[in-house]
Amino acid sequence: MPELRQDPVTGRWVIISTERAKRPSDFRRQKDEEGPVQPDRKEKNCPFCPGNEKETPPEVFALRLAGTSADTPGWQVRVVPNKFPALTANGDGRKKTSGLYNSLDGIGVHEVIIEGPDHEVELREYKPDHAVRVLQTWRQRYLQHARDGRLAYVQIFKNYGTEAGASLRHPHSQLIATPVIPPDLQEEIRRAEEYMEREESCLYCDLLETELRQGARVVAFNKHFLAFCPFASRFPFETWIFPRQHQPSFGDLTDAQLEDLVSLLQDLLDRLAKTLADPPFNLIVRTAPLHQEVPTYHWHLQLLPRLTTVAGFEWGTNIYINPTSPEHAAQFLNDVNKEEQR
Amino acid sequence: MPELRQDPVTGRWVIISTERAKRPSDFRRQKDEEGPVQPDRKEKNCPFCPGNEKETPPEVFALRLAGTSADTPGWQVRVVPNKFPALTANGDGRKKTSGLYNSLDGIGVHEVIIEGPDHEVELREYKPDHAVRVLQTWRQRYLQHARDGRLAYVQIFKNYGTEAGASLRHPHSQLIATPVIPPDLQEEIRRAEEYMEREESCLYCDLLETELRQGARVVAFNKHFLAFCPFASRFPFETWIFPRQHQPSFGDLTDAQLEDLVSLLQDLLDRLAKTLADPPFNLIVRTAPLHQEVPTYHWHLQLLPRLTTVAGFEWGTNIYINPTSPEHAAQFLNDVNKEEQR
Repeated sequence: MPELRQDPVTGRWVIISTERAKRPSDFRRQKDEEGPVQPDRKEKNCPFCPGNEKETPPEVFALRLAGTSADTPGWQVRVVPNKFPALTANGDGRKKTSGLYNSLDGIGVHEVIIEGPDHEVELREYKPDHAVRVLQTWRQRYLQHARDGRLAYVQIFKNYGTEAGASLRHPHSQLIATPVIPPDLQEEIRRAEEYMEREESCLYCDLLETELRQGARVVAFNKHFLAFCPFASRFPFETWIFPRQHQPSFGDLTDAQLEDLVSLLQDLLDRLAKTLADPPFNLIVRTAPLHQEVPTYHWHLQLLPRLTTVAGFEWGTNIYINPTSPEHAAQFLNDVNKEEQR
Repeated sequence: MPELRQDPVTGRWVIISTERAKRPSDFRRQKDEEGPVQPDRKEKNCPFCPGNEKETPPEVFALRLAGTSADTPGWQVRVVPNKFPALTANGDGRKKTSGLYNSLDGIGVHEVIIEGPDHEVELREYKPDHAVRVLQTWRQRYLQHARDGRLAYVQIFKNYGTEAGASLRHPHSQLIATPVIPPDLQEEIRRAEEYMEREESCLYCDLLETELRQGARVVAFNKHFLAFCPFASRFPFETWIFPRQHQPSFGDLTDAQLEDLVSLLQDLLDRLAKTLADPPFNLIVRTAPLHQEVPTYHWHLQLLPRLTTVAGFEWGTNIYINPTSPEHAAQFLNDVNKEEQR
């Protein structure tokens, strides 16, 4: 029988539809379909490849070999403004109201984090020390923009594969900082504050404890992080990664935690690629808004494989139909590991 | 400069990103791409075609020629339970709570409305009297399920094209009734009630008045309905269709209104197909929840062309980046009409 489940964090309902139960093989691509990342296989046309630095706006940050100059080869991770930014640095950021309608100048930041010089080596395939550099860069950019009083929220995300919105193949992630707090996040914080008042405890910390105790949805954990498929997963194989220590903001991430996060994230991406034949995905950082104390929030990553189509029912209700229960998804992701060990 | 806009109905922010401004031709398919509806062009394999009635579950409603029997040819519009339902009639519908987690048996309804016997003639192409039958059937099914005390909300929707989630080509729409009210709708109603208390007026009626007065986003109107591209459109060419008379529920739709709705909807779908070369879309009915007086709500249709990819930024923030301003979209949809008249 199908089951409706409510996410304790957002209040969102999902339908876990067992009538449509799906195994990983149901989501694998047909052989005649192309892989998830199609465009720009030719490196010479890739604006993110070494040697083509002039094809992007000038870099705003880079980790580079000693003695190399900005906007030339020699970088390990390189950050540039998006050539077609969704938001820009201009404008005064004041809210304008005209009758029923509020608007704001679209001030903000839109950056691309080029994750490495190699056109075809993905985040999950990097040596750990290089993957650490990528996440250090995420944190560096987060902290950089967190100081800007005109900004209210920093969204870091990675789109992998054409169906997940990636228009270039070269491994990269993005940062968009907005002058407004996403209303959904405000609602999530309101719920966390309500819980804190009622239970005198962090909703997210209690969630982690529940998941570790129940075990059925746990995918991986180490000293500092826990990965699990959430009880009310919207998407098949949706996985959340939380720091086990209570931290409101992604900017709070310490160096000691960073290594654990990278090792868990690489393991998870690797298992996902094996289980689902390299699926497209979105990876997003959820974190507290800037310039205010939000002690109840608890930052985390959400990994959202793109295996199902969002259609009329989801747009109408914001209730997602998920054909793979999170318990099954976790089982499949754990079985991959066992197969490997044989 | 890009602009952030807030939707007065939902509180949602969107980014109208002029840096990425797009004209209809940017969204048109490449010639070597297939049309939006690919599967099942062979009618003999189509479970929705006349003669194949045994391939669906038995019909629960049909408009048929006099003297024809259920589950045989002779129907004009036919309604059957979905063969792979997201929700089913079983279960007690009581909420279960286990620690942090709420769940419900997935009771509900999932029906398919087969819009006509012809495999390839679309809603926009029907003769008006047949298109009226389709929307009469929507209303009939809505009213049928509105009586069921276990249900809380009825979502009617149409997915057109593979990218919009349609898995069968034969023209059809769907109805899913859920035992919970979508939380987003509750939030929308809360905002409408707040507005009513503050302004002593209906938020939606005021919205229609504003749009008619400003004119820049109006796509079409007649005696009973108004279509416009909303101020904070999430998607290029997103269009909302409202009854001009205040009505909370889709079930309130009268016969007199019905003809006006059909004529406006067919005109709009036709213009969209011409402007954007037959794009995939989702069409959804937004209506008040069942079994309660919600006098502040004002039902409407939302037409959501699927031209852009939902990616990490949108999943992270629920803020959509729209590369075509609603004013431009309305202009393009109006220009199509002018070209026709030449």
